[in-house]
Amino acid sequence: MRLSSRIEGILGGGSDAWGLFIRARQLKDAGQPVVELTIGEPDSRTAPAILQEMHRAAMAGHTGYAAIPGIAPLRDAIAARVEARTGVPTTRDNVLVTPGGQAALFAAHQAVTDPGDTALICDPYYATYPTTIRASAAHPRAVATRPEHGFQPQAADLAAVAQGARSLLINTPNNPTGAVYSRDTLDGIAQVARDHDLWVISDEVYDTQVWTGDHLSPRALPGMAERTMVIGSLSKSHAMTGSRLGWLIAPPEAIARMADLAVTTTYGVPGYIQEAGLFALLQGPDAEERNAAPYRRRRDLALSLIAGQKVVRAVPAQGAMYLMLDIRDTGLGGTGFAEALLDRHLIAVMPGEGFGDAAAGHVRIALTLEDAALRDALATLLDFAAELSRAR
Amino acid sequence: MRLSSRIEGILGGGSDAWGLFIRARQLKDAGQPVVELTIGEPDSRTAPAILQEMHRAAMAGHTGYAAIPGIAPLRDAIAARVEARTGVPTTRDNVLVTPGGQAALFAAHQAVTDPGDTALICDPYYATYPTTIRASAAHPRAVATRPEHGFQPQAADLAAVAQGARSLLINTPNNPTGAVYSRDTLDGIAQVARDHDLWVISDEVYDTQVWTGDHLSPRALPGMAERTMVIGSLSKSHAMTGSRLGWLIAPPEAIARMADLAVTTTYGVPGYIQEAGLFALLQGPDAEERNAAPYRRRRDLALSLIAGQKVVRAVPAQGAMYLMLDIRDTGLGGTGFAEALLDRHLIAVMPGEGFGDAAAGHVRIALTLEDAALRDALATLLDFAAELSRAR
Repeated sequence: MRLSSRIEGILGGGSDAWGLFIRARQLKDAGQPVVELTIGEPDSRTAPAILQEMHRAAMAGHTGYAAIPGIAPLRDAIAARVEARTGVPTTRDNVLVTPGGQAALFAAHQAVTDPGDTALICDPYYATYPTTIRASAAHPRAVATRPEHGFQPQAADLAAVAQGARSLLINTPNNPTGAVYSRDTLDGIAQVARDHDLWVISDEVYDTQVWTGDHLSPRALPGMAERTMVIGSLSKSHAMTGSRLGWLIAPPEAIARMADLAVTTTYGVPGYIQEAGLFALLQGPDAEERNAAPYRRRRDLALSLIAGQKVVRAVPAQGAMYLMLDIRDTGLGGTGFAEALLDRHLIAVMPGEGFGDAAAGHVRIALTLEDAALRDALATLLDFAAELSRAR
Repeated sequence: MRLSSRIEGILGGGSDAWGLFIRARQLKDAGQPVVELTIGEPDSRTAPAILQEMHRAAMAGHTGYAAIPGIAPLRDAIAARVEARTGVPTTRDNVLVTPGGQAALFAAHQAVTDPGDTALICDPYYATYPTTIRASAAHPRAVATRPEHGFQPQAADLAAVAQGARSLLINTPNNPTGAVYSRDTLDGIAQVARDHDLWVISDEVYDTQVWTGDHLSPRALPGMAERTMVIGSLSKSHAMTGSRLGWLIAPPEAIARMADLAVTTTYGVPGYIQEAGLFALLQGPDAEERNAAPYRRRRDLALSLIAGQKVVRAVPAQGAMYLMLDIRDTGLGGTGFAEALLDRHLIAVMPGEGFGDAAAGHVRIALTLEDAALRDALATLLDFAAELSRAR
């Protein structure tokens, strides 16, 4: 039986970003001691106190349907957090609770594009960005960002492709590049958005992982609150990836329509998970800093190791739990290098090509191994790169 | 800022099915002793043993990303349950775990319709059926089912509108009518589906609530497994509405594409909820029967009360946790009767008009009050109907 064109087209027929990841998992499942530096899964688990609160809420009877836009106290706490971090007045009417940041990303594109519309993304991009847009029956149009600009999108490049687009999706701090967008970058984005009447969809799920500079949300810029949707999540800030708890910040009339959508896509988020998320948020910034600290430490560790050689160059990550490594001096592309590294040393890294054309010749490592293991794996990677470089 | 046409159009501009429900909730929140017979929320909570298992899984560390199509043991258990109940060979490759039955309903329509396509539904319908199709940028086309046919869809009626449609959504046992589709009805549906090359999307979330006859799935009919998607859920069978745990059964190639979609819409279902769901399913049919028993008892209680008068006629529910009452002899429509009943007696029931044109002149009551309270509320409703009838 024939399936819809939109679902057949989600993957877009491009290179499979996840081929290496899947091969690494298969090797691991077959008993091979594969070291995984692939995905953004925190190596810490959700704090027991958060899980205890979830259990308390469930046993107390919060097991029926929860309010579909989210329970009021959680919407209030999210609004307060957003307002505290950005200075933009925010109330519960600006907040939709979603089953994870990815669901918010999907809802945002459903809300701003119609089938056939164009939606802009920055290349390199997180793997689900083009698939989410194609799943919305819209067309992703990618704008390259360059290592020589620290992967910050340039206003002129955006303006050159913005004609007729409905939206621009950005991500700061950025996965996979580690870039934290500067005030200048965001001013340029805001100008293009106003000039071309674009929605800006701002994925800020790494906003607690900033190593240099400050996180700035485009929603805080003049005239931008009315045309910005912000995506947040507890996945990284509170090591709650599996709990699928995120949110979308938008103008109230957009939130009301996305609540209609949520009735048809998910029918809300488990009430006991929302209560656990409320508890987590109310722990305040110290808890978030504790969760971020290992990545900050490992990023410094990795950069100092990389500084000791000349073949592999790091794009110095300003934020997020990844490092993008330029391995072009090995003579291999990102995919070739990653495949060879897995074959020879059972170390799995993500080929840059999986994140778009602009990341070709790079690999991304996730800083999700404990420090000693990360140091060992990275040292092996650097030795392997040196060996390849000498053999050219 | 302009939102997409598809999200602005979800509600379809029709009558608001939920106006009365919302007014009743507002009265209740304002302290009025409103008796709610409106929505399908079980009055029992999720069993503590299921919640304990969820907590065990979470504390044991199942808090990271779970496999996106669902964890293998849960997919296996769902496949085994489906095969046991229908006789159709079913494996994990036929199963996608979703965050609730509604998410499965959305995924199914994404998978079988493209924007602009037509999708068939039977009127009266559950309130999210047309909105889910409109959220998919497809067009719902409703086929009336009639009280005089026990709300069983007639093959000739379906064939008359099937030309050019991509899918037919059915629901047995049926919400709101309580109909359980007969073998004849399903044979007719299967014939129309084969003749017009339709997918059948079969919502079977009430499959443990069958009071007369047997539940039959269209997937079990000759040649239908390849063109049927079945939606299931633990919401009603295990009083787990708030946990949002459901599934979709389909041919393996469709499941693979819907797993791609799930990466973009939800990124999977919490692992600890899946483990709790596995535990619940492994309790077997006795646990499901225990959860269904109160509705069976209350349905009998309600029918015997209704048999004692002549103004209100019940469409004898063969399944599901609702009764559809024909109140046309009061001289009011379903909406007028429901509004008057709420005003005069603070009893909230759902107007039939909220479920489509075919249910005009009816109200739906949910059997979700404990027996004595249900008896009192229904007696008041019947007295009120008699009073209206005498006053005509």
